[in-house]
Amino acid sequence: MYRPAGYGFGFISGTFAIVNVLSDMTGPGTIGIFGHSQDFFIATAFLTLAIILLNTFWGVVLFTSLDKGGIHQYLGPAVVVLTHMLFSCLTLFNRTTKPTYSISIITGYVILCGMISYALFLRGFNIRQRLIHTTYNMSSSTAPKKISIVGSGNWGSTMAIHIAENVRELKDQYDQKILMWCKEETLDDGSKLTQVINKQHENIKYLPHEKIPDNVIALPDLSESVKDADILIFVIPHQFVKKTCEELKNKIKPTAFALTLIKGFYIDEQTNELLLVSQIIKNTLNIPCLCLMGANIAHEVAEKVFCEATVGSRDEQHSEIVRQLIDTPVFRLRFYPDVEIIEILGGVKNVIAMCAGFADGLKAGFNTRAAVLRLGFREMVNFCRLHEKESTAEIYLESCGFADLIASSLGGRNYNGAKKMAETNKSLKDIEKEDLNGQSLQGPGTAKEVYRFLEAKNLLDQFPMFRDAYLICEQKIEPKKLLENLTNHPEFHRK
Amino acid sequence: MYRPAGYGFGFISGTFAIVNVLSDMTGPGTIGIFGHSQDFFIATAFLTLAIILLNTFWGVVLFTSLDKGGIHQYLGPAVVVLTHMLFSCLTLFNRTTKPTYSISIITGYVILCGMISYALFLRGFNIRQRLIHTTYNMSSSTAPKKISIVGSGNWGSTMAIHIAENVRELKDQYDQKILMWCKEETLDDGSKLTQVINKQHENIKYLPHEKIPDNVIALPDLSESVKDADILIFVIPHQFVKKTCEELKNKIKPTAFALTLIKGFYIDEQTNELLLVSQIIKNTLNIPCLCLMGANIAHEVAEKVFCEATVGSRDEQHSEIVRQLIDTPVFRLRFYPDVEIIEILGGVKNVIAMCAGFADGLKAGFNTRAAVLRLGFREMVNFCRLHEKESTAEIYLESCGFADLIASSLGGRNYNGAKKMAETNKSLKDIEKEDLNGQSLQGPGTAKEVYRFLEAKNLLDQFPMFRDAYLICEQKIEPKKLLENLTNHPEFHRK
Repeated sequence: MYRPAGYGFGFISGTFAIVNVLSDMTGPGTIGIFGHSQDFFIATAFLTLAIILLNTFWGVVLFTSLDKGGIHQYLGPAVVVLTHMLFSCLTLFNRTTKPTYSISIITGYVILCGMISYALFLRGFNIRQRLIHTTYNMSSSTAPKKISIVGSGNWGSTMAIHIAENVRELKDQYDQKILMWCKEETLDDGSKLTQVINKQHENIKYLPHEKIPDNVIALPDLSESVKDADILIFVIPHQFVKKTCEELKNKIKPTAFALTLIKGFYIDEQTNELLLVSQIIKNTLNIPCLCLMGANIAHEVAEKVFCEATVGSRDEQHSEIVRQLIDTPVFRLRFYPDVEIIEILGGVKNVIAMCAGFADGLKAGFNTRAAVLRLGFREMVNFCRLHEKESTAEIYLESCGFADLIASSLGGRNYNGAKKMAETNKSLKDIEKEDLNGQSLQGPGTAKEVYRFLEAKNLLDQFPMFRDAYLICEQKIEPKKLLENLTNHPEFHRK
Repeated sequence: MYRPAGYGFGFISGTFAIVNVLSDMTGPGTIGIFGHSQDFFIATAFLTLAIILLNTFWGVVLFTSLDKGGIHQYLGPAVVVLTHMLFSCLTLFNRTTKPTYSISIITGYVILCGMISYALFLRGFNIRQRLIHTTYNMSSSTAPKKISIVGSGNWGSTMAIHIAENVRELKDQYDQKILMWCKEETLDDGSKLTQVINKQHENIKYLPHEKIPDNVIALPDLSESVKDADILIFVIPHQFVKKTCEELKNKIKPTAFALTLIKGFYIDEQTNELLLVSQIIKNTLNIPCLCLMGANIAHEVAEKVFCEATVGSRDEQHSEIVRQLIDTPVFRLRFYPDVEIIEILGGVKNVIAMCAGFADGLKAGFNTRAAVLRLGFREMVNFCRLHEKESTAEIYLESCGFADLIASSLGGRNYNGAKKMAETNKSLKDIEKEDLNGQSLQGPGTAKEVYRFLEAKNLLDQFPMFRDAYLICEQKIEPKKLLENLTNHPEFHRK
């Protein structure tokens, strides 16, 4: 919006200035010229140029600063108005019999430079990064790109296989060696996990029975595995993201970009605001970060069962690379120019999948189960809209929204755990011990974070299912309370 | 939009005319007045009024006719331009030395009357109906309203029970006797169904074991059961709608309104356009028609299991009546100011529920099943958008969209039939014979209608799941073909 507006203002204003000068030149009947110095036209030409450019950048600054919010939404308009008045005052210097054009020209161009800088700053232009990118692009744009996968669990190993197979067809563009960081573990027989992966070409602990191509190299050293990477794929448990990123700080190629497959988020302890994995990666490593989320149960992907996913990306070049690496006839991608909402959906859907599990465990009817999923989906949408008020409903119909919730509610781990909880009245801890070998479910953790976030914002009443899911996990209320509360869901009071 | 635009045009134009006259009056320097007749100002006053009103109605006609489409989108603008030119020519009569104001005034007001009539016609104003409504409202607005239910199957009997219980709390506003039209059937023991319902207070054929309150009266005579009704609730199989409406023509109170609970639609044989149940009711009986759709399996509603539904209504008074009659803590309603999309969704969801059944019958993975539901939901949305291009995605997140599809795909009749078809390779006919006592499933019929509609519009490629569902029902392709085609779904080529 601000671009056409800015250019429009600039153009009209410039035209106006030119018409003024022309009318001054041809006269009679025009007013305002006292000294007819020979410099008049040349000075006016320079000032006209300045005011054309200034109006352009005033437009950019005004609208961008209003969009940006924070201090800039007040500073931006104020700066625009003040410099506008200042520039107008400059013409007074020319109202003398011997005008001192130099003063107004110099001051005018100083104001112009200031506005250009402010506009570039507001638009997020970073001259250092631009220089780095230009240098790297010149030196390495034709070299095959290197890929590193940070993480080697169930989903990480699956994606390593998938990508390693795909790059074989793209020898010119991608380095054939895929490095995979693998947190070293000693297995029961005393052998090291990385060595087993590199020798047997199978992740016998986290993805048994699936052959890993021999162009995937597992490395126990984090820095070593990423130092030359052009593309970093993050797929570690979300609680390790902060620590891992801190370790990688300043060790990443500045032209690299990241893709996160990690579901879940933090609530910042101090501010009680959402802190997303992509934001942590972006802010700590100073590289762009895309995300990929969808209805993708790992072992089905490994077995080449058809699935689809949504990629959040605001950069077309990065999108194209992700498409080359991941999109295949059995793994279809759709791209969407947003990252945050896709990530939030990937986290909160586990809470609603648990609600579906509670309902099924209580043998609720089909009508009620459908209502649980729909009202839960509504809460997911409303939760995302706390973050991005204007998000259109289209994004929620993508794989990362609709389909991921359905897949998780047909039989995911969180669903199964919640169902058993409602059936048996056992505690979550006991169920995790019995069924998951002591591993933690992700849903209860997310439910807790979401509860804390909503409580701090005094919004728990608006999200009764998120609220009740947490309280049930903590065994503070019974699962059937969730169903009883549906009848008073705020959705039924919404216009 | 057309209202502010019309009023805006009218206002500015009128102001302009007045300023012109004022400048004529005060002169000098104005042109165009030849004869300074004493009638000048009075004539101009009348013409000014005419042009103010004309501009208002020109605005209304222009925008309404463009919205309306069909012949009017050409006729409307043409009429506006021509009458505008004609009116402008009228001023020529006043350019003579002895102006004949009467000609221009009379012609001007004739044009004005014509435009008012055309505008009212375009806006659907019906003077006869208005008169009837005013008369009826004066005579009967305080009398308790009478309710008739047209249909007494599974869902009809359920709603009869539900409503009969609710009106007990609303004695002042609603007649306590609920009439239910019941197509007479002779039962195995020779007794008549209506008599059994009225004596035993149970619909032993279509809703056994559920007590029907004794204020529900079953009547075998269609006209008799509806003749005094203020609210008609239609809940018959959709193939009988046309015939039933024809029988009721001119036998309905003109102030009544209808509510349809009927899922499914026709494709008009001649035009190949959608023909919705609400449209048939509205056009045949000349009364407004609302609809109610959602994830509502009848026997669960009868057993008071929590559910929700979406009501399509463009009239707040009617919405309020439906809320009073149907909304309860176990049956929650949400209202949406659209009827057609809600109805279309209620029909096509059965086709996608069958696709889910095929996928499950083939033991597809969770990822694929989630993708089938999402891509199918996308086709439902796109199909609705053929009808109403601008529909926002919000409506699809209501019970009538998201939840109804989920409930039908968790274990509805169409889902179960399709699943068995994929598992056993039996024909639909055989399955209907074995499992449904020979009753027809609704999904295959809708699939056929939708296929015919899309084929006529040359859009089958855009809706591969609708296409394949029909072809599978006809045993022209195998169910697994549906899953194979997912990878090339147009959704993955959409920006």
